[in-house]
Amino acid sequence: MKKPKGTKQGVKKRIRVRQIRLVVEYDGSAFSGWQAKAKAKGGGEGRSVQEALARAVREVTGESVKIVGAGRTDAGVHALGQVACFETGSSVPAGNFAAALTGKLPPDVSVLSSEEVPPEFHPRKSAKLKLYRYVILNRPVRPAVGRERVAHVSTPLDADRMGEAAGLLVGDHDFTSFAALEATRKGNPVRKITRLAVSRRGEEIVIECEGPGFLMHQVRTIVGSLIEVGRGKCPPSWIDDVLEARDRSAAGPTAPAGGLTLVEVKYEE
Amino acid sequence: MKKPKGTKQGVKKRIRVRQIRLVVEYDGSAFSGWQAKAKAKGGGEGRSVQEALARAVREVTGESVKIVGAGRTDAGVHALGQVACFETGSSVPAGNFAAALTGKLPPDVSVLSSEEVPPEFHPRKSAKLKLYRYVILNRPVRPAVGRERVAHVSTPLDADRMGEAAGLLVGDHDFTSFAALEATRKGNPVRKITRLAVSRRGEEIVIECEGPGFLMHQVRTIVGSLIEVGRGKCPPSWIDDVLEARDRSAAGPTAPAGGLTLVEVKYEE
Repeated sequence: MKKPKGTKQGVKKRIRVRQIRLVVEYDGSAFSGWQAKAKAKGGGEGRSVQEALARAVREVTGESVKIVGAGRTDAGVHALGQVACFETGSSVPAGNFAAALTGKLPPDVSVLSSEEVPPEFHPRKSAKLKLYRYVILNRPVRPAVGRERVAHVSTPLDADRMGEAAGLLVGDHDFTSFAALEATRKGNPVRKITRLAVSRRGEEIVIECEGPGFLMHQVRTIVGSLIEVGRGKCPPSWIDDVLEARDRSAAGPTAPAGGLTLVEVKYEE
Repeated sequence: MKKPKGTKQGVKKRIRVRQIRLVVEYDGSAFSGWQAKAKAKGGGEGRSVQEALARAVREVTGESVKIVGAGRTDAGVHALGQVACFETGSSVPAGNFAAALTGKLPPDVSVLSSEEVPPEFHPRKSAKLKLYRYVILNRPVRPAVGRERVAHVSTPLDADRMGEAAGLLVGDHDFTSFAALEATRKGNPVRKITRLAVSRRGEEIVIECEGPGFLMHQVRTIVGSLIEVGRGKCPPSWIDDVLEARDRSAAGPTAPAGGLTLVEVKYEE
């Protein structure tokens, strides 16, 4: 946190620095993602949610802050409960930030709540579980209403088969086959999935995926692979072969970003 | 239906004219409404769903057709099951129109199904019931995700009180107080409401309104008035006074268009 511009050098004032935690909702359709891309490959940076929040804090407190999020959602991915933190030396009551920031934010971002948290709290490192939801509209005709928030699959999908395949992914696994190459080339590719549920609600198939943390594109590649099983192209047991292969090309395609929503980040209370 | 441009005058060919019924879904956010405004008050006409459909039919069959809808939804109102008809002399199988037209339509309109209906069928006059749904997001912070399809009310609303008030509107009534002035100045202001249900689903209050036909702005003015009751400004019995007044100014404000969706039009099978 940099000092506000207006602070007079001569005046000594004890500034108490507080960490504020926000719960943030956003429609990812018009964002290039949570994070500003440091080095966009030839081209503009686009809008990032992180930058939109930093700009709003600057308008409210005059401070240039660093916004730290719980999860870096990709371009087009939505959030109902992203968690983000920043430090402030301002005197704005913690609970007032939600309304104050929302008033300065563009219509596709809202701050649902704000509270002070201890300095040792970290939105990503302190997270116990993240819940993602993926929605597939499974009918012959493409959607018009709500089309930015579902992925359309016209071939009939068998949700029970998808659920059976999903069961094989629960637990600790090497998810190299289910992640972007850049995510597994350097870091540890083992992740834990605590829940992966597939259910049909009318024309929609809803996939809920919960775990302490995910690799880049992991949830979307899991969904893309479950779709292969659901349309009958592969048996549920194929998922085990894909895990075993430790090779991205063994899995199904990465499902479109628009169907994915970060629903909630859970912490130990 | 005008003759297709390509028809040769000299060749006599018996053209069988069929009436095709479509079920249409659209996101009303970027439309000026179902119908092209004949005389827009100073300014452009904007996009209409009717014109988008007529253009798609022209691309598929080469014919300039008149599209007749079951209900003229206002600018910003959505539909999951609008019903529309047109006549065609083409040989396109009736069931193929859904996919063919959707392929030519902009992303905010889809045709869910298409079938041949007898010439005496009329999408509005033959309709037995229309079901509209209105969704209110009732929480302190404005929505970001799905903001085009809900109306935001930040004051807490009492859905039970709203439901009690709604019960007073079921049946045959003179709805002059609940309709746009231009709708009641000429025609019969009596309409029947067969069902008006208010329910809370988490942060959302869902109002379902069913009846054979509605006056212009009727559902939205009913919702605007139920909101007055829900926030405690008026008792449920106030609705009876409003009905009695036969005066638009006695009712609450017209609720925003974006919260309203035409869900289904029902016909006698």
